[in-house]
Amino acid sequence: MNTQRLEKVLKKMETEGLEQMIISDPYAIYYLTGRFIDPGERLLALYINQSGKNKIFINNLFTVPEDLGVEKFRFSDTDDYLTPLCDCVEAGKPLGIDKTFAARFLIPVIDHSGASSYKVSSICIDEVRACKDDEEREKMRAVSAINDKAMAQFRGLIHEGVTEEEIASKMLDIYKSLGADGYSFEPLVGFGANCALGHHGPDNTVLKEGDTVLFDVGCRKDGYCADMTRTFFYKKVPSEKHRAIYETVRRANAAAEAILKPGVPLCEVDKAARQIIEDAGYGPNFTHRLGHFIGLEVHEYGDVSSANTKVAEVGNIFSIEPGIYVEGEVGVRIEDLVLITEDGCEILNSFSKELDIVE
Amino acid sequence: MNTQRLEKVLKKMETEGLEQMIISDPYAIYYLTGRFIDPGERLLALYINQSGKNKIFINNLFTVPEDLGVEKFRFSDTDDYLTPLCDCVEAGKPLGIDKTFAARFLIPVIDHSGASSYKVSSICIDEVRACKDDEEREKMRAVSAINDKAMAQFRGLIHEGVTEEEIASKMLDIYKSLGADGYSFEPLVGFGANCALGHHGPDNTVLKEGDTVLFDVGCRKDGYCADMTRTFFYKKVPSEKHRAIYETVRRANAAAEAILKPGVPLCEVDKAARQIIEDAGYGPNFTHRLGHFIGLEVHEYGDVSSANTKVAEVGNIFSIEPGIYVEGEVGVRIEDLVLITEDGCEILNSFSKELDIVE
Repeated sequence: MNTQRLEKVLKKMETEGLEQMIISDPYAIYYLTGRFIDPGERLLALYINQSGKNKIFINNLFTVPEDLGVEKFRFSDTDDYLTPLCDCVEAGKPLGIDKTFAARFLIPVIDHSGASSYKVSSICIDEVRACKDDEEREKMRAVSAINDKAMAQFRGLIHEGVTEEEIASKMLDIYKSLGADGYSFEPLVGFGANCALGHHGPDNTVLKEGDTVLFDVGCRKDGYCADMTRTFFYKKVPSEKHRAIYETVRRANAAAEAILKPGVPLCEVDKAARQIIEDAGYGPNFTHRLGHFIGLEVHEYGDVSSANTKVAEVGNIFSIEPGIYVEGEVGVRIEDLVLITEDGCEILNSFSKELDIVE
Repeated sequence: MNTQRLEKVLKKMETEGLEQMIISDPYAIYYLTGRFIDPGERLLALYINQSGKNKIFINNLFTVPEDLGVEKFRFSDTDDYLTPLCDCVEAGKPLGIDKTFAARFLIPVIDHSGASSYKVSSICIDEVRACKDDEEREKMRAVSAINDKAMAQFRGLIHEGVTEEEIASKMLDIYKSLGADGYSFEPLVGFGANCALGHHGPDNTVLKEGDTVLFDVGCRKDGYCADMTRTFFYKKVPSEKHRAIYETVRRANAAAEAILKPGVPLCEVDKAARQIIEDAGYGPNFTHRLGHFIGLEVHEYGDVSSANTKVAEVGNIFSIEPGIYVEGEVGVRIEDLVLITEDGCEILNSFSKELDIVE
């Protein structure tokens, strides 16, 4: 167990009036124990209590080190593991429950644990995870550096007659050759009008002169996720409108990054980018929030949107990804990851954002 | 909505004493509506009621056809969707809940819906899904035929000096060239002693003479999953023990498949294979159940194990995958998918199971 992280979680629980909680999110368990287990349909649960009476429930199928730093309850598929889990719970007191805890476990716990109430309380971990510690910052820098190098190679795959799928099919090998463990998400590769589609997966569309080429890509390394988007032009910028759209998105990205520092409300960061796009007449074409938090997962708790009035804190890492999408015509998105520092922010991606015409 | 499938689910609910249920598993929703949505952290729920008062809750982010055959409640991230969901529920009556329904939705439903009780009742869908209808059988045949062809090509990748990872990295393209949509799961490729490890992912182990080569692989096509394992020898069978282990596994596979027909208890099928392995002195080396059900998901509800006293039914599709694993030395597994028919079974994989020495 990472005792520093656990202490922070217990402190958040205290402010929520919770003495005990069941954590089931595999990433949250990895965050606290250093061991990632994907339990599939099986139970994986970490019970924590202010008293220090913690216990982790792990199926025998999964190997874990002896010295996990927390008492283990091991079980096989045919054992009763729900009664021991319920027995942990202090009756008569509220029980915090992870947001992802599945009904097949939660309903028996509600029927048998005797807790006085049940409260979704993932926020106690999620808010801690939102502020990356030094070790995590290093890993996010490292994985983002790989993503920068990979983007340069992806750019090199743009050529006459290539399809989206052909480019996408080469990305995993490139990431691995640069030291990544794999994708952090399936890459989005779009040409021309396909760039305007929200979640367009690479297909057999053939590249043609004047197309935009959008790469929304990320790799994973040592558990942490990169995520970056760049949009290129192939051979020419087909119209002044295309150029204006690109430059507007670039300025929106820069405007948001320029105001980042501890204490800035995240809705203001969203606004800084959105205002520039609105002023250019493309407000309705920026159809999503400006960014999302990221770390062990590509999308973590926390976002940069008009609805989020929370302020940026030191150690937050999130994306800044404004976009303009004109259906049937063109889409441009530019995305970096940023780390909030004591006196501003560190942009984790260094790949150029200047308008770039690939010959 | 597929009304035939829905009728079967409602009938199962009746036998469980349920008038109403919330379904949240994206595969179950696909099974009933023909539309697959991966909602990520967002709510996706299908409320069904014996009265026909059904409603599906889908975030605006996901496009669905107008004529889904069920009333839709669309919402955005900032809308209240839990009150409308609770409003659907008939108060004072039990409410069936899908096993995967997440705590962040279930706890508010329990707090506000007024149902008299909550019961994990996925079995009402899972048991229907376990008996594939004609359309599903056709799709399972088609995807398994691709897997057979792919196995022949994977065999061709076995050569001097190759690593597990090098072979694995070529599999996706082969599947796609044969018409598959992608993997049904990440391929397991093992050489020599690695074949004895439960869930060994392909690494940089180099092939050497006398190694076994284990491919546990599957693709997906039109929503349905293939899954097959074959174990080859490279250049030679290194000892009589290796040969005996292979032949024991082959006979165990054949013995189980030989007794398959409607009405046979699944634990007896497991026993038929296990007996042969035990008689050969390798009982403790067959460390897992004989098989699992499969369809829209690689692992579906239902298994072929000593604990499952249910009988095989027409339309069941599951794997038959005996194995012998000697730690640090050798591992052999042979796996087919089988379909239970009126008078026996249809083996969906035709790739040879004879001992095969690749030169």
